[in-house]
Amino acid sequence: MRHALRYKPAYSPQSDIAFSSARYDTRAMLRNRLHSMAGTKMSAISKAVLLLLLFGIIFAGEVCGYRSKHWRLGFSESSMKYKPRKPLQIEANETWIWPLPAEWTKGESTIILDPKLELVVQGGLSESDVLEEAFERYLGHIFVHQSAEGKKLRRKSSSPTLLRLVINLLSDNQVLQLGTDESYTLAVPATNESSDVYLEASNIYGALRGLETFSQLCGFNFETRSVEIRDAPWSIKDKPRFQYRGLLIDTARHYLPVETIRKVIDSMSYAKLNVLHWHIVDTESFPLEIPSYPAMWDGAYTKAERYTMEDAANIVEYARRRGINIMPELDTPGHAASWGVGYPQLWPHPKCQQPLDVSSKFTFEVIAGILADFRKVFPFDLMHLGGDEVDTSCWNQSEHIRGWLKDRNLTLHDAYATFVLEVQTITRKLGWAPVNWEEPFSEFGKLLSPDTVVHEWYSNNLVPAIVDQGFRCIVSNQDVWYLDHLDVGWEEFYLNEPLADLNSLDQQQLVLGGEVCMWGETADPGDIEATIWPRAAAAAERLWSSPYVANSTYRALPRLERFRCLLHERGVGAAPVKNYYAREGPEGPGSCYDQ
Amino acid sequence: MRHALRYKPAYSPQSDIAFSSARYDTRAMLRNRLHSMAGTKMSAISKAVLLLLLFGIIFAGEVCGYRSKHWRLGFSESSMKYKPRKPLQIEANETWIWPLPAEWTKGESTIILDPKLELVVQGGLSESDVLEEAFERYLGHIFVHQSAEGKKLRRKSSSPTLLRLVINLLSDNQVLQLGTDESYTLAVPATNESSDVYLEASNIYGALRGLETFSQLCGFNFETRSVEIRDAPWSIKDKPRFQYRGLLIDTARHYLPVETIRKVIDSMSYAKLNVLHWHIVDTESFPLEIPSYPAMWDGAYTKAERYTMEDAANIVEYARRRGINIMPELDTPGHAASWGVGYPQLWPHPKCQQPLDVSSKFTFEVIAGILADFRKVFPFDLMHLGGDEVDTSCWNQSEHIRGWLKDRNLTLHDAYATFVLEVQTITRKLGWAPVNWEEPFSEFGKLLSPDTVVHEWYSNNLVPAIVDQGFRCIVSNQDVWYLDHLDVGWEEFYLNEPLADLNSLDQQQLVLGGEVCMWGETADPGDIEATIWPRAAAAAERLWSSPYVANSTYRALPRLERFRCLLHERGVGAAPVKNYYAREGPEGPGSCYDQ
Repeated sequence: MRHALRYKPAYSPQSDIAFSSARYDTRAMLRNRLHSMAGTKMSAISKAVLLLLLFGIIFAGEVCGYRSKHWRLGFSESSMKYKPRKPLQIEANETWIWPLPAEWTKGESTIILDPKLELVVQGGLSESDVLEEAFERYLGHIFVHQSAEGKKLRRKSSSPTLLRLVINLLSDNQVLQLGTDESYTLAVPATNESSDVYLEASNIYGALRGLETFSQLCGFNFETRSVEIRDAPWSIKDKPRFQYRGLLIDTARHYLPVETIRKVIDSMSYAKLNVLHWHIVDTESFPLEIPSYPAMWDGAYTKAERYTMEDAANIVEYARRRGINIMPELDTPGHAASWGVGYPQLWPHPKCQQPLDVSSKFTFEVIAGILADFRKVFPFDLMHLGGDEVDTSCWNQSEHIRGWLKDRNLTLHDAYATFVLEVQTITRKLGWAPVNWEEPFSEFGKLLSPDTVVHEWYSNNLVPAIVDQGFRCIVSNQDVWYLDHLDVGWEEFYLNEPLADLNSLDQQQLVLGGEVCMWGETADPGDIEATIWPRAAAAAERLWSSPYVANSTYRALPRLERFRCLLHERGVGAAPVKNYYAREGPEGPGSCYDQ
Repeated sequence: MRHALRYKPAYSPQSDIAFSSARYDTRAMLRNRLHSMAGTKMSAISKAVLLLLLFGIIFAGEVCGYRSKHWRLGFSESSMKYKPRKPLQIEANETWIWPLPAEWTKGESTIILDPKLELVVQGGLSESDVLEEAFERYLGHIFVHQSAEGKKLRRKSSSPTLLRLVINLLSDNQVLQLGTDESYTLAVPATNESSDVYLEASNIYGALRGLETFSQLCGFNFETRSVEIRDAPWSIKDKPRFQYRGLLIDTARHYLPVETIRKVIDSMSYAKLNVLHWHIVDTESFPLEIPSYPAMWDGAYTKAERYTMEDAANIVEYARRRGINIMPELDTPGHAASWGVGYPQLWPHPKCQQPLDVSSKFTFEVIAGILADFRKVFPFDLMHLGGDEVDTSCWNQSEHIRGWLKDRNLTLHDAYATFVLEVQTITRKLGWAPVNWEEPFSEFGKLLSPDTVVHEWYSNNLVPAIVDQGFRCIVSNQDVWYLDHLDVGWEEFYLNEPLADLNSLDQQQLVLGGEVCMWGETADPGDIEATIWPRAAAAAERLWSSPYVANSTYRALPRLERFRCLLHERGVGAAPVKNYYAREGPEGPGSCYDQ
């Protein structure tokens, strides 16, 4: 018999995890106080002094506390005591799936996984290399504590055991695009009635989501030496709330090696994010090969910090095999000074390296060339054209641009619009829907064609205005979804509601989803994982799960802590959930599940 | 014709890397000043105020600088300019191998690697799964920019090309131990005279070191789309300066998942470190299974944060396949409070949880049981027994210990010695040489048997005294080789000389080598890589290379920066070389090679 439970007691593979909610609350309060302080109209000096004092105290604590353990105090350790763990309390009966599925029921039995678990693919496809590879990856995660050789199974012979994972595909469609159906159903039996886990999906990408969920149900039991699923039978019916669940990476402020990008893609798949927004180029560097303009990557930091077009194609394919689209960005006319290293004629004036020269045909030939090159390797429906933070004033320093404006009777503002619209036209001809940061909408929204996707980031509460004009929208409000803002805690990421203030269903449907942004000024391969995780996961649940299910930070906290530990087990360097400041390490010894 | 060059002009795959030595020097000076301040007798308050001010300024800079870019200043970016890179200067003609080999000659030609490069093993073994796997791993690193499919080679047909890597083994010995011969010679031809790279080694572990060196000679040429070796012909004759080149990890203060340990092992092999000192247990937790005492791992943080004995065996094997020994540590009688969670009778008194009960036979039965269990999975010659930071005063709180001491006419100090010596005896019977932290040597060195290895860590300049007594020694002085000391910069790691003040060869030969220690109070999977690297690499060169070759931080800096970028390319999250404070991210945008 199955129980229809939501948030009802059940599952806790680690029933002895310590959890001090009191300690946590103090910190959250402190952070919230700081944060609200930042929003009030205190003088900059008062703020600086306060922050200085606070940080000084924290810093002094670190120096005096940790450094001195073996350094100054010397023989202090042996008088320490073992700190007994409190029994698990609030999390005892939680559903440990991140992000939470749309619907589920569970029972009270435990079933064991045979380490020789077999994959069977049926339905629309009888085999799938994508699913076979994914299955092997997940077996690696699930059976990490098994012996490498032989995968010995030690169990009571009478235990109900799962022998097969049967994936039934409803179609043979292998195209991954915006709106690809990612829904799936997952059934785990409880007893010897069946030895099959049954996973059904429209296509391989929904099956990948189901595999992730399945892997999160599995836990290693150190007493029996078996991988088991508790609270069986499980019946899960799941689909994402938003079709666009993105993460931005920035390879212009710091080059990210191919291996780093692969690792980011892997980690995204664990949180069911599905779009990697690749902010390839910016003022600081131009790392990607452009076959049509082979001097373009002279704008890279160094000869080694570059990507070939083959690299880009490999990254797209690597991501596809994890159900993730790559949305490239070519930011114009601002954020483009590095283009001029290879082609100085793109700089309007020696003292004006950007925005790109609006008056020159060559500028648009180059853009058309780059986009045509992009089109060969980036199959995703959406192409991000930037268009943000354009300060046109320095165009006036160029005599030929002044003449060009005068001849056409254009203001600088008109010229900015002309630039963006021209690039949109080129993009549309290549079969893409254009995405722009919000400025073109704010500045000349009436001129934009209706297929434009507006990427909200800067203004407070612009989404209603965007969808009110009939545009599709991606939400990234920088006050809470910019990962480089290190003082924004996971709760703020979690509570950001993309559909706030949208009452009509029509308007809501124009919100494609949201995206967290890992701007690269201070993020490189050494700290990018700890800066992204676990906060991106908080947004990922907001974007995948129903707001009626994922509605409480109090309930989410132990689940997010556990998800962070899962990331660790898979080699992802997620920072503590409860640190004061993002990507800081833990403050002292302790369990992963309590930090 | 080959040139006999040492430090002579030649190789620079990235000839456009920016490098600002002026900026660097300022920082180093600042850090040194701070560091020396910490050593003087300033009042604690003055120090705190100064640190507070300094950190406040840094922090304010971060908040105002990076956060505000998209947050407060808004439209600031488009007026930025592309910062032109300075041509490469001091590093132009460097030998880019880290750590530097013992001897090498190089030429002026370039030779290309065929992407279908074949491995041939000959001599003592005709095949080796260890070498075949390693070869595949290195191909993955070397050919990362090649297309995934087909590995297309685009090159001028006339270019000299390497088709085979021939490894000649002088023996079939596959035992990895302290003192295993890691020497190798490597010859890369320059022209069509030969299409073989020739690598010769006594055994597979020397061959692994040679493979690492070979991989560091290879670089991808983005213009020709080929992997090439510059400055050929190369002739390298290499061997380590010290037989023991260690890194300590601490799985008691934070649990490190198996995957994290694997990644640490991988990264060690890139720097030719060869001993992972596994500080398994401490006051805070006991994560490892002990079959003889199955309640012992009740002292783990949680049920999930544990290792099975199979895990330990798998880690040993994983490390062996990379030429790395695992030295386990069982720290007694202090640092052991977590033992009593499963076996409370090991606690001398409810208010005295450590040192372990010296008066109880059970204590030594348990230790004998643990060590016998360890012996089954840890084949390395050395067993670390801790023995550090023992504060025996609380033994006095226990009536039965007081009685036991009185009966035997022992002081607390005598009892401490009795404890350590008894554990050494058990260890020796199991075929290990015992290693102890320096305290037993300092406290009762005359009682230690001569096979004891003394692990120096706390006192200034204790090594001469240790070897003077005829003991072997491992050097880890905490002022410069403790990685958790975040204010110690790479230069201090680099310049620490294990043989300082040892003039006789006999004495020098007693120094087995050195070890950097990653104590885990604030290091978990989220920050451990950035805390270890790149500073551990600085020590690794000190331990591998001749002090006459590796003698200048000025020369080492660009090489270490490049090694850090190599770590990034291989997925290791190394922190910037030039940060103020270890494991901090980069301060702003820039090339990996300049941070």
